[in-house]
Amino acid sequence: MIIDCHGHYTVLPKAHDAWREAQVAAFNAGTPVPPYPDIPDSEIRETIEANQLRLVKERGADMTIFSPRASAMAPHVGDEAVAIEWATRCNDLIARVVAMYPETFVGVCMLPQSPQADLAGSIAELERCVGMGFIGCNLNPDPGGGHFTAPPLTDRFWYPFYEKMVELDVPAMIHVSGSCNPGLHATGAFYIAADTIAFMQLIEGDLFKDFPTLRFIIPHGGGAVPYHWGRYRGLADMLKQPDLSTHVMNNVFFDTCVYHQPGINLLADVIEKKNILFGSEMVGAVRGIDPQTGFYFDDTKRYVDNLDISAEEKAMIFEGNARRVFPRLDANLKARGL
Amino acid sequence: MIIDCHGHYTVLPKAHDAWREAQVAAFNAGTPVPPYPDIPDSEIRETIEANQLRLVKERGADMTIFSPRASAMAPHVGDEAVAIEWATRCNDLIARVVAMYPETFVGVCMLPQSPQADLAGSIAELERCVGMGFIGCNLNPDPGGGHFTAPPLTDRFWYPFYEKMVELDVPAMIHVSGSCNPGLHATGAFYIAADTIAFMQLIEGDLFKDFPTLRFIIPHGGGAVPYHWGRYRGLADMLKQPDLSTHVMNNVFFDTCVYHQPGINLLADVIEKKNILFGSEMVGAVRGIDPQTGFYFDDTKRYVDNLDISAEEKAMIFEGNARRVFPRLDANLKARGL
Repeated sequence: MIIDCHGHYTVLPKAHDAWREAQVAAFNAGTPVPPYPDIPDSEIRETIEANQLRLVKERGADMTIFSPRASAMAPHVGDEAVAIEWATRCNDLIARVVAMYPETFVGVCMLPQSPQADLAGSIAELERCVGMGFIGCNLNPDPGGGHFTAPPLTDRFWYPFYEKMVELDVPAMIHVSGSCNPGLHATGAFYIAADTIAFMQLIEGDLFKDFPTLRFIIPHGGGAVPYHWGRYRGLADMLKQPDLSTHVMNNVFFDTCVYHQPGINLLADVIEKKNILFGSEMVGAVRGIDPQTGFYFDDTKRYVDNLDISAEEKAMIFEGNARRVFPRLDANLKARGL
Repeated sequence: MIIDCHGHYTVLPKAHDAWREAQVAAFNAGTPVPPYPDIPDSEIRETIEANQLRLVKERGADMTIFSPRASAMAPHVGDEAVAIEWATRCNDLIARVVAMYPETFVGVCMLPQSPQADLAGSIAELERCVGMGFIGCNLNPDPGGGHFTAPPLTDRFWYPFYEKMVELDVPAMIHVSGSCNPGLHATGAFYIAADTIAFMQLIEGDLFKDFPTLRFIIPHGGGAVPYHWGRYRGLADMLKQPDLSTHVMNNVFFDTCVYHQPGINLLADVIEKKNILFGSEMVGAVRGIDPQTGFYFDDTKRYVDNLDISAEEKAMIFEGNARRVFPRLDANLKARGL
């Protein structure tokens, strides 16, 4: 079974996107937010079947762990009430997709992390979504949108949220959103920088002493981390931290959203297979065809297929690790006899 | 000949560091800055011979392109006058090292880029240092120190400085300094994030159309870029930019400050050899011994030696590319019959 741990609903019913624009405009104008539109199932089917579902099938995956469009989470827009309603609407749409295609999609929620707010709204939304069958969340380490003003992920600011994650036994993908910094391109700079920064925060701190069962996925192949694995091992040593294998890597996982074969080869070479989850970031950051290969850049299954590793290791990357990191997915699949 | 393009003077005469503390304290107290101390040649010899020179010799390099300690440039501390005097003192110390060991060291200057100031002070300091025989500079893309508030490197804000670089025919290493952001560890997060962000800025812009001979070295192996080379090629395509080989890679170079063999293998696999300069970042970010190899993490010559590439390609990485990127170094060596 092939489970893509990193898919976003990026081609959406037009009425949903239009409502978001109206919501933000109403906030800026100080006028009431218009009611959320009735979106018929047919429109959801249309967007999903022409895009995500088609690509999942064409590329040979079985399931996608599906969350709202990351670049549009934009918690820095508006205030907390805006963020809460937007997260609710986006997550509800994911729930509808999952209800329509339960054999292919399973939900991960976004959170209403308004930069000035505490995490109470995010805790409530996580509980609500897990109640609807979601199996994890996307946690934004820089809800301010590109100036890295939030406390490090090891700060006690985040602890109430981590307590809820542990209680519900759900992991978080550490995922920033759109950039409001003209120097930081969202998918080319902000995402990769934030991934790298998050990992270094975890090296510096001792978060997993306090939360031994907390689990994070650092997407986009772990940012720069595998390429600089020697630097991170060396820095842990200089900071008198334990070896990364016990200090961080019982709790942190990288996806395979690295868009060329040499990158995936490096990932599988330096990072233990138990820490790698197949992911593609579809339909997302890079949509074109690689002229060097003739295949889509984000057809990452192809790169994993080409790895010179055992069938057991491939099965871990494609399925086993996702079931371990997302216990609610495992339970869901077992209930379906899978 | 083996030229290390990335060395910092990190173990310094104590009086120099003490003066810096006094300078900052005086700024904060609003009192006069104490006079800069007389530092005898013997103290400089002691720090250099016990550290940089010893390691250069032990590891088999011939020359180091040498600049002030990057993490201590700290242009966000004090005001522009503080930054100008600090840069002057640090660069003068480099000039003294170079005068004492001209066969081993050649100077690259830091710049007094105070966050609120324009680049006039940096232009003046670059001219002064090139007049003393320096061959390049370290340009800080985030002088604010960890919140990425400066304009992108493609912004016209930087153009007066680039004009001077082109006029003097000197390259810049894009290098941030210490972090004043508790979420960004300097050498583990800020450096690597800033390298990655800089490269994406260059993809988004068209800087080298305006400055076809401008040259940047992005250190630390180019941040995350080689690992995500497919992503960057794909993003250039999505942004309707030319192929990276012509859009950026006639002007941008990566060093080999990647502290494990698989990382250097990837670098040499995906990046053209003409764009790679040997560098170690000594004595710097990671000082320990890799328990997996028994050798120092930052003994990067060893990784380059191990590459499965031709002798001509190794000579480009160790010498030829540095002479091409730093024409004033080439002239200096030719004048010495090298």
